[in-house]
Amino acid sequence: MIEAPTTRVRLDIAYDGTDFSGWAKQPGLRTVQGELEQALATVFRRSGATPALVVAGRTDAGVHATGQVAHLDLTHTQLQQLAGHRPPRPLDQVPDVLRDRLNGIAGLRSDVVVRSASFAPAGFDARFSPVWRRYEYRIADALAQRNPLLRRHTLWYPAALDVEAMNAATGVLTGLHDWAAYCRPREHATSIRELQRFDWQRDAGGVLVARLQADAFCHSMVRALVGAAVAVGEGRLPGERMRSLRDEAVRVNEFKVMPALGLTLTEIGYPAENELGARAEQTRAIRESPVQ
Amino acid sequence: MIEAPTTRVRLDIAYDGTDFSGWAKQPGLRTVQGELEQALATVFRRSGATPALVVAGRTDAGVHATGQVAHLDLTHTQLQQLAGHRPPRPLDQVPDVLRDRLNGIAGLRSDVVVRSASFAPAGFDARFSPVWRRYEYRIADALAQRNPLLRRHTLWYPAALDVEAMNAATGVLTGLHDWAAYCRPREHATSIRELQRFDWQRDAGGVLVARLQADAFCHSMVRALVGAAVAVGEGRLPGERMRSLRDEAVRVNEFKVMPALGLTLTEIGYPAENELGARAEQTRAIRESPVQ
Repeated sequence: MIEAPTTRVRLDIAYDGTDFSGWAKQPGLRTVQGELEQALATVFRRSGATPALVVAGRTDAGVHATGQVAHLDLTHTQLQQLAGHRPPRPLDQVPDVLRDRLNGIAGLRSDVVVRSASFAPAGFDARFSPVWRRYEYRIADALAQRNPLLRRHTLWYPAALDVEAMNAATGVLTGLHDWAAYCRPREHATSIRELQRFDWQRDAGGVLVARLQADAFCHSMVRALVGAAVAVGEGRLPGERMRSLRDEAVRVNEFKVMPALGLTLTEIGYPAENELGARAEQTRAIRESPVQ
Repeated sequence: MIEAPTTRVRLDIAYDGTDFSGWAKQPGLRTVQGELEQALATVFRRSGATPALVVAGRTDAGVHATGQVAHLDLTHTQLQQLAGHRPPRPLDQVPDVLRDRLNGIAGLRSDVVVRSASFAPAGFDARFSPVWRRYEYRIADALAQRNPLLRRHTLWYPAALDVEAMNAATGVLTGLHDWAAYCRPREHATSIRELQRFDWQRDAGGVLVARLQADAFCHSMVRALVGAAVAVGEGRLPGERMRSLRDEAVRVNEFKVMPALGLTLTEIGYPAENELGARAEQTRAIRESPVQ
């Protein structure tokens, strides 16, 4: 007899994407989902089917995350098993037990960490409930200090970039548009998204940090937008061209899609608890095949 | 005929110490000095003896640096060779040429970076001129967010640490003292040093950052002091004991020397140009065998 899951748990996850072939499980490749589901299989080896993970942002190979969110559904038997783990704990501490067990299996020096686990509110869906996603892209150009300690998530770029020109070009891009010029095309998938923020700042060491926010991003959209902005910063692309490219909505070769290395998923925004279910329904209806 | 060097160049260096057996050259091991001197040998393969590096802080295996300083002495022929490198440059740009060549050999994704090179002022000696050294030690305890992107230079510690107790214990330690209780003994070497700063703060992610400054540190002193402070933060060592241990000046087993992983050399302080020579003489006289 198969027992139906009854309780949804939210996981907040961080990872160094360098040695992962992205989030999504793939046979024969080391992926974040694969690694975590393997750990779940170990935790629940004596209590039924391994829960599957549903994620907010299916990051590509090499992309990092400090604010990834996923959910999984547990059966009553699985909850009881966690509560009975020595020392026994009250049911409200079960998510903490799960977090500690997953991190224990992943290992103290691991490149993936479950930062927290919590019972999800009713209607919560990690993939369909989000109202926005935030990404950062870090570039140490010729004007910045190169820090070898941060090299795994900072692109070292040989030229000097004009951050004012970049901000002038990206600040006017926001709004609800078709981003086909900046998306890798996918069959049956729309490229209409609302870009809510795209700006650049130098941090204390002079490293350029791009911050982007959208309701969702289509495939390779962040890295394409950053690539066009870098072309502007280097004087290879006129600033106005970023907007006209967007409006023409056709893929061109005027800029490069940037490497995954500099990209980090930093935060997922969810609506207030009483709007969670409605938001998920709405998202499912709008996007035939939502990505990232 | 051997040509005597005429010009001293200062290098500011950063490295991820994870994959190095420390700074100092050792046969058969990968070290920062070894790597950089090999690059220097390549640069000057056609112009006489390879210049040797003299360093401010001889960091141990696994210790990182963002503010390491070293010097080397170049002959007139070597200066001319750098100036003649295509495209030819005026002599005052020779240090930049050297920096770029060294970084070019080390490779764009390398774990060691020459951040800048400059002509050293008269009397400058990277090892003997410093008036202080600064180190940081980073610990993500049970109360902090663990960021896999920073795991190569942040120790993950399973317990929660009491930062107020730690600050109370370390803030009263400063001054000119014999640090024998916190130093690995070395023959003919004094362990008298002036500790100028030792405090703790949590950063935005809750990571505990210790900042230490001294005229110089004896061997393993930073990691021993941090280990004792962690014992205080965990409630295993009374706070007052840190000072009484110092005053007893005898090595004990009441705390652990912390791993190299969390330790970064962040800055070297040099006196004003007109005091450089005097400071170097003074240091040589005081310390028979200065370390770190």
